Amino acid sequence: MYYVGVDIGGTAIKAGLVNENGKIVKKSSIETKATRKYEEVLNDIIAQVKELTKGYEVAGVGIGCPGTINSSGVVEYANNLYWKNVPLAEYVGKALNIPCKASNDANVAALGEVKFGAGKNYSDAVMVTLGTGVGAGFILDGKLFEGFKGMGAEGGHTVIRENGVSCTCGRKGCLEAYASATALIRETLYAMMTDKNSLMWEECGGDLNKVDGRTSFEAAKKGDKTAQEVVDGYAKALAEGILNFVNVFRSQIIILGGGVCAQGEALLAPVRRHVDEYRYGGHDSPKSNIIVATLGNDAGIIGAASLFI
Amino acid sequence: MYYVGVDIGGTAIKAGLVNENGKIVKKSSIETKATRKYEEVLNDIIAQVKELTKGYEVAGVGIGCPGTINSSGVVEYANNLYWKNVPLAEYVGKALNIPCKASNDANVAALGEVKFGAGKNYSDAVMVTLGTGVGAGFILDGKLFEGFKGMGAEGGHTVIRENGVSCTCGRKGCLEAYASATALIRETLYAMMTDKNSLMWEECGGDLNKVDGRTSFEAAKKGDKTAQEVVDGYAKALAEGILNFVNVFRSQIIILGGGVCAQGEALLAPVRRHVDEYRYGGHDSPKSNIIVATLGNDAGIIGAASLFI
Repeated sequence: MYYVGVDIGGTAIKAGLVNENGKIVKKSSIETKATRKYEEVLNDIIAQVKELTKGYEVAGVGIGCPGTINSSGVVEYANNLYWKNVPLAEYVGKALNIPCKASNDANVAALGEVKFGAGKNYSDAVMVTLGTGVGAGFILDGKLFEGFKGMGAEGGHTVIRENGVSCTCGRKGCLEAYASATALIRETLYAMMTDKNSLMWEECGGDLNKVDGRTSFEAAKKGDKTAQEVVDGYAKALAEGILNFVNVFRSQIIILGGGVCAQGEALLAPVRRHVDEYRYGGHDSPKSNIIVATLGNDAGIIGAASLFI
Repeated sequence: MYYVGVDIGGTAIKAGLVNENGKIVKKSSIETKATRKYEEVLNDIIAQVKELTKGYEVAGVGIGCPGTINSSGVVEYANNLYWKNVPLAEYVGKALNIPCKASNDANVAALGEVKFGAGKNYSDAVMVTLGTGVGAGFILDGKLFEGFKGMGAEGGHTVIRENGVSCTCGRKGCLEAYASATALIRETLYAMMTDKNSLMWEECGGDLNKVDGRTSFEAAKKGDKTAQEVVDGYAKALAEGILNFVNVFRSQIIILGGGVCAQGEALLAPVRRHVDEYRYGGHDSPKSNIIVATLGNDAGIIGAASLFI
């Protein structure tokens, strides 16, 4: 038996045929062209899935989508797609005549990592995805937790610095406003403006447009103090957000995903140190290990399919 | 059939015989004398419960206790009681030969409020208790959620202001450090020192030792601007903490308990305004109502008994 995972993004929609072991057998990608009417986008997805599943028996189609998706698979709102009250699961399921579920993309990625990736031996995990924004997915007792009626789990939108930097959600000081790649770049630029001799200027070839999530980490590795401060501040903010989850969920593991994780131990070591030091109950209390996601770019597809596997 | 609820506090231990409708039929209170060996305290509780249940058929003894209690009913640590690894449920249950469960006091109070108090028509709630510290209890789908192995749910120890005021838990800027009655008194004193003409000075009769959680609220009601700033700051911090829970759990209701709640609408109105305004997804997203607990001083007993009812 096979399963389909669809990963809707702002620029591309990736779909994969997944077997019961969570392996992708076949995949395809189409352009989202998000400014269109939602029906046009969904019709493209339906055609894409039909093409992908030709000749295969498929038990279910799982869809991961950015935004707030309620437990009926309706996209209540998805800013990047300009969607509001889109009956995603129902529309696609009916057209394909295959059971269909839809859930938030960060949430399904977490589910995929726990079923088939970094967290596969654990039942309780939080996955924090560090990208343009900060997504969080919560797995409790092996199951995806999305809050009442599937409307919660917005862990990126928990404030860690009251009255801090403005967040896209309208609050100030959210974890997303400090731990996203976007925030890292902002802090990198700010620090560069305070230190014209920083190696970060070399890293980006003197072109501020080329500053990215790697700039501060690379310069810090070469001993640049200002860059190290950027890295430390970023790791500290991320650790504070993770600690908030740890003190409430006491998850066995925290899985970090997203581009910034490519920094590996340069990021993980300081985050681990802070979380280990300050978790509630201190060193007598159970430790939440912090690890990096392993499914990479396939997490979206495998995670979406995991809604059925 | 009857149930027993035991509410262990730092100074007194209250026990009650509770019927299946969550009504207390009979209750008693003894001194904790917390500096004693834990066995002595537990033996007193056992005697207290025996006395209370004479002639009644009892199905279970539920115990609410401050600190971190794991899902086996072992008190991993309870600072106020000087306890560490105390097998609370097992010790009491064996001696009484009645099934016994133990859980964190804030958690059982939340359970009691959802089963028999302010939240009785709801399945998903967060209760935030504003006392010396800030306790939080999470009810998901009608059941108490305490984190993996019962070691979480420490909602008072989630940071809302990175690098803020030191918290007893070792972190800086926890919700507890801003939304406890202790924090309210601290901010009241601070504000009084900045405004010698504030009505808060009258409220406490010029005696700083008499400043309490009411001082700022009472002066604010009389139009004192400095006092209003204290109230506003307190309500804002509390609202930020609540919003962090709302964005993750999307609970139907937030139940506020503890002494500060006696302020009623003077506290609730600004908290509601902020939470309504800034919840993730804005006005299109479901609203979490904010209400005050109704079980009052009996919440501990009824909540503990609710572990069985």
